[in-house]
Amino acid sequence: MTGPGQEGDPADRRPAPAPARLSINQQTIRQWSLPELAAGCAKAGVRGVGLWRAPVQEYGVPAAARLMRDAGLEVTSLCRGGFLTDTDPAQRAAALADNRAAIEEAAVLGANTLVLVSGGLPPGSRDLSGARERIADALGELAPYAAERGVRLAIEPLHPMYAADRCVVSTLAQALDLAERHPADRVGVVVDTYHLWWDDTVGDRIADAGAGGRIAAFQLADWVTPLPEGVLLGRGQLGDGSVDLRWFRERVDAAGYTGPIEVEIFNPALWARDGAQVLTEVIDRFRTHVL
Amino acid sequence: MTGPGQEGDPADRRPAPAPARLSINQQTIRQWSLPELAAGCAKAGVRGVGLWRAPVQEYGVPAAARLMRDAGLEVTSLCRGGFLTDTDPAQRAAALADNRAAIEEAAVLGANTLVLVSGGLPPGSRDLSGARERIADALGELAPYAAERGVRLAIEPLHPMYAADRCVVSTLAQALDLAERHPADRVGVVVDTYHLWWDDTVGDRIADAGAGGRIAAFQLADWVTPLPEGVLLGRGQLGDGSVDLRWFRERVDAAGYTGPIEVEIFNPALWARDGAQVLTEVIDRFRTHVL
Repeated sequence: MTGPGQEGDPADRRPAPAPARLSINQQTIRQWSLPELAAGCAKAGVRGVGLWRAPVQEYGVPAAARLMRDAGLEVTSLCRGGFLTDTDPAQRAAALADNRAAIEEAAVLGANTLVLVSGGLPPGSRDLSGARERIADALGELAPYAAERGVRLAIEPLHPMYAADRCVVSTLAQALDLAERHPADRVGVVVDTYHLWWDDTVGDRIADAGAGGRIAAFQLADWVTPLPEGVLLGRGQLGDGSVDLRWFRERVDAAGYTGPIEVEIFNPALWARDGAQVLTEVIDRFRTHVL
Repeated sequence: MTGPGQEGDPADRRPAPAPARLSINQQTIRQWSLPELAAGCAKAGVRGVGLWRAPVQEYGVPAAARLMRDAGLEVTSLCRGGFLTDTDPAQRAAALADNRAAIEEAAVLGANTLVLVSGGLPPGSRDLSGARERIADALGELAPYAAERGVRLAIEPLHPMYAADRCVVSTLAQALDLAERHPADRVGVVVDTYHLWWDDTVGDRIADAGAGGRIAAFQLADWVTPLPEGVLLGRGQLGDGSVDLRWFRERVDAAGYTGPIEVEIFNPALWARDGAQVLTEVIDRFRTHVL
């Protein structure tokens, strides 16, 4: 029921402000430049954005930091560090240096959270557990460096379909096993619905992660099929797929997480549309399927 | 070192017989008709084949049974029953009827094992655990029917990338949970390297499955990237990918499984080649990467 006071002149009917915890990962509206993202999110009442290193570097890290700050936007995460599974000493040193650079960029942006995509198997290797231990070793070097700069590392388990070429950390249990070797304020985990939705043990692991104060980020995308070639750009708009997003949000809430909820959808169909229209749809879907 | 007795006339040098436990799933050499498969496998000394329902039905089930028997080939599995997650009563009844037909076909073929691909989420559903319980209900109806005909149902966990549209049973733990509600000689599980290789708990679950006498089939394919659109036909030839096939074979052996080891590779590049050449390569790869 709508009261008469809400039925006045169209100019009075402004869209409701975006939900307070909603953050927009810039990949969701990749067609927007950083200034467009800042202006568009500010206009819609969004309070947080997740940024990616390449566009931030291109724009200039301090300039991007200023842009977001001036628009009243918190940078809820920087994506991404990681790729820490190389065996070759030179490649490994380069990866560590690149992660230190990512940590510094996160600090400049005021992003508390640097998301880590850990890396796949080195060429010719079949040793998943060995690769995970090299990630553990690298975290030992990087976590103190990040902590000194006020940045928390967030280990993101990726869907098992990426285990070979992108991330040997496939479950929340594996991510927690790596994170728990460090203080909770230094190393946490990412709960991303796209990667974890199939796992019948994920509810218990979310509870564990929350109890340990380990949930560093909560990201949303839906699962739609058929998957495209390469399986990178097939994430679904909220509500279009198989994931019970509200179930996840309730579990993460119940685990004590009160931080931002970031929408991160890689989908060329969204990128082909008007950015403002996509943002409006995301906010609408977020209300319908997440809150 | 080769002794002089082995260096005689080329006509004396026959290829070594295929490894005793090797079985060829017909999808691996899909370009072969059933008679070509029977003749080709017999010639190479292969003793077992895994068959699929559609080509067997097309050829005629009793005729296919006779063809394989006459070639000295055991039908190590029939693929596949399943798709038991529908909520609509009529669809569900049709699925059960189709599974009873599959059981009867397996019995005619002398195949002890009917592989079940359990089914994905019904349209619009997001309830994975509900879907798994409908599979459990269906197994309650089908397992006695199969046992009366000497056929064992084998629940195959499929890779989590198929959870939405093909199989909500994504881990060996979930498959065991369903199988263990029945006697071990009625319902077992399939260990398929392609689907399970990423899971760091799979070694323990293989041990559990073996201890309970639940390993009904052991199938091999390698994991190669990039995945093709739809992710169905991208399985790798043995040794071409990321899976430690020997590790799996050793675990399955240690768990007490002594049955056939079936090579099941869906790969258009293999289908484009001469079938006999593919079979020779599979046998060679099996020796190098599995035994």
